Amino acid sequence: MRAYDIIAKKRDGGELTAEEIRFFIHSFAKGDAVTEDQAAAWAMAVFLQGMTAAETAALTEAMVTSGETIDLSPIPGVKVDKHSTGGVGDTTTLILAPLVAAMGIPMAKMSGRGLGHTGGTLDKLESIPGLSIDMSREDFLAQVRSIGVAVAGQTADLVPADKKLYALRDVTATVESIPLIASSVMSKKLAAGADAILLDVKVGCGAFMKNIDDARELARAMVAIGQRLGRRTAALLTAMEQPLGNAVGNALEVAEAAAILANRDDCGFGPLSTDLREVTVELAARLAWMAGKADTVEAGLDLAEQTLLSGAALDRFRRFVEAQGGDSRVVDEPERLLPQAAIRRPLFAAQAGIVTALDAMAVGRAAALLGAGRTRKADPVDPAVGVVLHRRIGDAVEAGDKLAEIFANDDRWQGAAQALGDAYTIGRGDRHEREGWAKPPLILGEVYPDGEWPVQK
Amino acid sequence: MRAYDIIAKKRDGGELTAEEIRFFIHSFAKGDAVTEDQAAAWAMAVFLQGMTAAETAALTEAMVTSGETIDLSPIPGVKVDKHSTGGVGDTTTLILAPLVAAMGIPMAKMSGRGLGHTGGTLDKLESIPGLSIDMSREDFLAQVRSIGVAVAGQTADLVPADKKLYALRDVTATVESIPLIASSVMSKKLAAGADAILLDVKVGCGAFMKNIDDARELARAMVAIGQRLGRRTAALLTAMEQPLGNAVGNALEVAEAAAILANRDDCGFGPLSTDLREVTVELAARLAWMAGKADTVEAGLDLAEQTLLSGAALDRFRRFVEAQGGDSRVVDEPERLLPQAAIRRPLFAAQAGIVTALDAMAVGRAAALLGAGRTRKADPVDPAVGVVLHRRIGDAVEAGDKLAEIFANDDRWQGAAQALGDAYTIGRGDRHEREGWAKPPLILGEVYPDGEWPVQK
Repeated sequence: MRAYDIIAKKRDGGELTAEEIRFFIHSFAKGDAVTEDQAAAWAMAVFLQGMTAAETAALTEAMVTSGETIDLSPIPGVKVDKHSTGGVGDTTTLILAPLVAAMGIPMAKMSGRGLGHTGGTLDKLESIPGLSIDMSREDFLAQVRSIGVAVAGQTADLVPADKKLYALRDVTATVESIPLIASSVMSKKLAAGADAILLDVKVGCGAFMKNIDDARELARAMVAIGQRLGRRTAALLTAMEQPLGNAVGNALEVAEAAAILANRDDCGFGPLSTDLREVTVELAARLAWMAGKADTVEAGLDLAEQTLLSGAALDRFRRFVEAQGGDSRVVDEPERLLPQAAIRRPLFAAQAGIVTALDAMAVGRAAALLGAGRTRKADPVDPAVGVVLHRRIGDAVEAGDKLAEIFANDDRWQGAAQALGDAYTIGRGDRHEREGWAKPPLILGEVYPDGEWPVQK
Repeated sequence: MRAYDIIAKKRDGGELTAEEIRFFIHSFAKGDAVTEDQAAAWAMAVFLQGMTAAETAALTEAMVTSGETIDLSPIPGVKVDKHSTGGVGDTTTLILAPLVAAMGIPMAKMSGRGLGHTGGTLDKLESIPGLSIDMSREDFLAQVRSIGVAVAGQTADLVPADKKLYALRDVTATVESIPLIASSVMSKKLAAGADAILLDVKVGCGAFMKNIDDARELARAMVAIGQRLGRRTAALLTAMEQPLGNAVGNALEVAEAAAILANRDDCGFGPLSTDLREVTVELAARLAWMAGKADTVEAGLDLAEQTLLSGAALDRFRRFVEAQGGDSRVVDEPERLLPQAAIRRPLFAAQAGIVTALDAMAVGRAAALLGAGRTRKADPVDPAVGVVLHRRIGDAVEAGDKLAEIFANDDRWQGAAQALGDAYTIGRGDRHEREGWAKPPLILGEVYPDGEWPVQK
């Protein structure tokens, strides 16, 4: 088998066999029979010629088998995982993981740091004093077994082919390819060992997928991979026009997540987003159903609500934070124990009206300007800085109302204030128009596999 | 300007500007702002999305300006060049260069070695004892000025971007792209400085282009580049089903070329190919017309025939060989002075009939098996070995007639004999069928630019 022939076959629109794909990906990962140049040409051929469902599944499997995999089988029950394609103020994992654990569903979560407007789940968690995401494989599994939840950094041993291929795609304009995105996401989820995988595909101006058709195509590709490779896999398509949570920033998002778990109205830095709570509950309901803890999604919704309202999810969050060395009192005293920004600057409405648009990307840019995210892997993130929204799309405002607040550590707050001001569009609607403004829908669609769930291993 | 954006634009089917192409190619050649990975992805995008005539010309110009160029303007007259896309037994340059020089048309030829069934023009010439193709730029130009012809190895300073890009295309399955092939060929011709460029595009089973439509497309692309970049450029499409010359092998081809120049019937190793002579004269006629030495192609044909028959072309060949340090007596005593193979093995016809096919690729494989060519740049070639054909397509044969002869230096002659036997197809036609067998046409088409020749500089 030769790299050249495999590139030429894909270039000419042919369907690669599983053996050809495995040879290509494993050789590329090892750096022997496939060079970086050849992988770049191949990725462009895949970008332009596409891949069948069988090829995409084979690519995913080849990436999984390029490295180690985590065996969760010693842990009883249906182990679940959730992946979000990324958005602004997307704090769902921090709430969802303890919530599903409290519902009796183990979640062993490997997370990344990534590049973006804020840090990733790991960065957010690390803003909790003492909390560590570095743990041995044994400690990780033992924690999932004892309290049903652990979040650790993805180790270099997992899916090395994906890491190498992604770095290449990033510089060769071959990122935005459905089969390449789908296999990249799914390879990491499969290697992490969960039995059931729920994908939260974000749609809108603040998401990677700008329109519902592209999002559905990606969701279908990922669900098909899971189905072919024997994992229960489903996807929700959820809105990402405005930030999902009100908090955008690492410690601020921890505070909002904790406050939602604690059934409060305020996180200490501002009001909570009912959208964030709603999407998290919808995700939890599907995981309950997929894991066999609820007979229907409806029953899953009830179970998730009860678990949140009872305080069981909050309790699980405290145990999780403590198990990973963190100070769980951040739930009670976020303003004292979480990193604090030196400067707070409110943004006021200049006129009365209704919030008709709140550009998630612009809010993200404001957070990035403050230092909440990173553009290169080696960059540090500032845990304290960010934005908290006080008004969302559909909210009526009076002139002088606080629209949002900036948390900064230096004079970059001025640029952030500019970006944040640009993010809000206030319509001067009359009373009738205001009342006609409905809250935009959050759940835009769902994707399930064709046919039955794969038989559980 | 960023490499990423240029790749993405071509990926999405956009037309690149001359500035974008120049930035990309020059940065790639220098190895700074464009990596090998990025060039590989870009080449695949070009392969699949194509290029407009304007883009292809801009790419050619960018490759030319990536390195040095040769200034032939101090030499009086219209300087010409010829390029063949490559075939088996293609010895035209060895005859054409002294022939056109004898017609008063300067030809300053930069040649390559290349990979193939036999060596390139340089390897063939080096089989002449004492002849050297290494000379300074000054000596090269002085020789063209004094005797109208010189052949030298292409130096590393010329079109470095093409060298680097070709090496990359060779491993990334992006060779067979019309804009990339056309710009690669034309960049070398343009950098070498000729005013008029004639392309000999080979068509058939022994050529890179297997069918006339692909060949015409390539020819048109190359002629359009020449036209846009201000050089008189034309193309002949010529047949390459069977080897063009009877000799296939380095010294053997020198012997056949010299014998044609000397108006003999035999080269000392076997009979001569009238096809080789005919194609060379047709090429010479067009160069005479393009260089203004003949008012029409018809007049050019007459001039070329006279120059051959008068012995003036042979005389120029002798002066050329001597000027480059070679022993011009190889013309008179090829069997004594050219490298001799230790083993000669004739191939006889097993049955009477007519040669209905003579597979150029199979003959080429036979020569390659004997060691006449190279598959890697560092390989040596054996100048003495090869094949001489005694019968060509359309020839009647009796059982026991000599079809061809193998010249070998070791027992690889056995494999070569097998390949050579496979190359011939002898039809058992009756007398009527035999008489109906016409000699296949050699000149399959011609391509000239739209509009007038570019104004001479």
